[in-house]
Amino acid sequence: MNKEEYFIKQFSNNKIIGDDGAFIDGFVYSMDAFFENVHFKKEWMSLKQIAYKSMIVNISDAIVMNAKPLYALLSVAIPKTYSNEDLKELAKGFKKAAQEFEIEIIGGDTISNEKLDISVTIISKSSNPIFRTGVKKDDFLCYTGTLGSSKKDLEALFKNEKISKKSKFIKPVLNPKFFYEIAPFVTASMDVSDGLFFELERLSKASKIGFEFFEEIDENIGTSGEEYEILFSFNQKNLKKIEKIAKKYKIKLNIFAKAIKGSYKTDAKNHHF
Amino acid sequence: MNKEEYFIKQFSNNKIIGDDGAFIDGFVYSMDAFFENVHFKKEWMSLKQIAYKSMIVNISDAIVMNAKPLYALLSVAIPKTYSNEDLKELAKGFKKAAQEFEIEIIGGDTISNEKLDISVTIISKSSNPIFRTGVKKDDFLCYTGTLGSSKKDLEALFKNEKISKKSKFIKPVLNPKFFYEIAPFVTASMDVSDGLFFELERLSKASKIGFEFFEEIDENIGTSGEEYEILFSFNQKNLKKIEKIAKKYKIKLNIFAKAIKGSYKTDAKNHHF
Repeated sequence: MNKEEYFIKQFSNNKIIGDDGAFIDGFVYSMDAFFENVHFKKEWMSLKQIAYKSMIVNISDAIVMNAKPLYALLSVAIPKTYSNEDLKELAKGFKKAAQEFEIEIIGGDTISNEKLDISVTIISKSSNPIFRTGVKKDDFLCYTGTLGSSKKDLEALFKNEKISKKSKFIKPVLNPKFFYEIAPFVTASMDVSDGLFFELERLSKASKIGFEFFEEIDENIGTSGEEYEILFSFNQKNLKKIEKIAKKYKIKLNIFAKAIKGSYKTDAKNHHF
Repeated sequence: MNKEEYFIKQFSNNKIIGDDGAFIDGFVYSMDAFFENVHFKKEWMSLKQIAYKSMIVNISDAIVMNAKPLYALLSVAIPKTYSNEDLKELAKGFKKAAQEFEIEIIGGDTISNEKLDISVTIISKSSNPIFRTGVKKDDFLCYTGTLGSSKKDLEALFKNEKISKKSKFIKPVLNPKFFYEIAPFVTASMDVSDGLFFELERLSKASKIGFEFFEEIDENIGTSGEEYEILFSFNQKNLKKIEKIAKKYKIKLNIFAKAIKGSYKTDAKNHHF
């Protein structure tokens, strides 16, 4: 058990804590940290990009639970050396994400610190939340888009190499419309933030189920984190409906496994930065 | 304008952001950071005390808005050097505060970091929220308890001197029952987190009003932060009712000013650590 798991285990209500967000009375509450030298280095991204991504990784949690994000609270620890121009750039990033997803920034806290450390709370609404616990035997497992580029880009950044401006590591792409439309046919879902293999381990634990892979998945694909693609399961009978919606939104589907009795554990080391 | 104010000004909805918490549709949302070397040094307090105080300063925001805290989300950045025993102590502090105020910890995020940096989001419910904007001309201004000891204790800590185990700086004392009972007679309220003079400046700005002091307030009292006493205003006609409730809960009332036309600004420097 790693330290994060040990710490979480200290709290009694793991049922709520274990998912991307906590669902209570029609609302989904989620909170994620985005810290300098933990999730990013300041040389890698502009302040606007940092603020934007700190919002997106939180909004992603809401979307994969089939919730519509409404409000955001920001806790922003800012280095004393930042100029007003820097603060403006930071604010621009937060506001860009808020505008794009029609979220209202309603408050938070701003403090002076040695480095830029952001925590974001998103309050969302859902009449039909989707949890990690819902995978049923014989369901198909699927992830959207392509996996692997974030890991490659992160490795390049560590080697001080340039990466594409369109890198998902810098600017994750979410597909809320696509997901909300397939949601009625989805049995379980989560985002790929730590890497497919690690998310599958969590999904297996939450749904008490194993997976039969259709073909081997390369480690560079399975261990690439910070992808923010969607991992989901669905009853095979809904395959055509989901494919039709994916086509409409030009989303690539990768149906890679079937849920079976048992459990899944990965041997891969968690490379999450 | 300081940097915090400049940053907040970048967001359009300052009306919601300006209060202790944001009130929307019967809920109050508040978020506060509690960072190592910003709000505390680890030599000053046990991990349990740190976690406990990080919750209390947030719960305080809810109470002074006449809201009942329900749920908490925790973003906890933890040094890699912490042992499982340390994590247990941290969790104990969070749970102690949660139990005391009947709050459910519903989620959050745990990450590795160089120092212990905590952000807490509290979700509260209120059918009758009290804002900073409500002070009316001729209202009396009042703060609870005594002010000054937190500043003295903080100065002692900086000089490596021991302070009382009962110090409010280590363990703030909130009085929710008292406040919920006087709330129907309160026109505006906030907690004293940065110091009375600075809170009065905020109150003056929010309510567009000035203050006539009954006697001069010593700077050691007016600039002592981290007190978590309650600053509130009320119509003079309710004085007796409030005094009666204060007596019941053994709360000391300090009625120190009357609201007048004008505005209030302090010359004192903000000593907030």
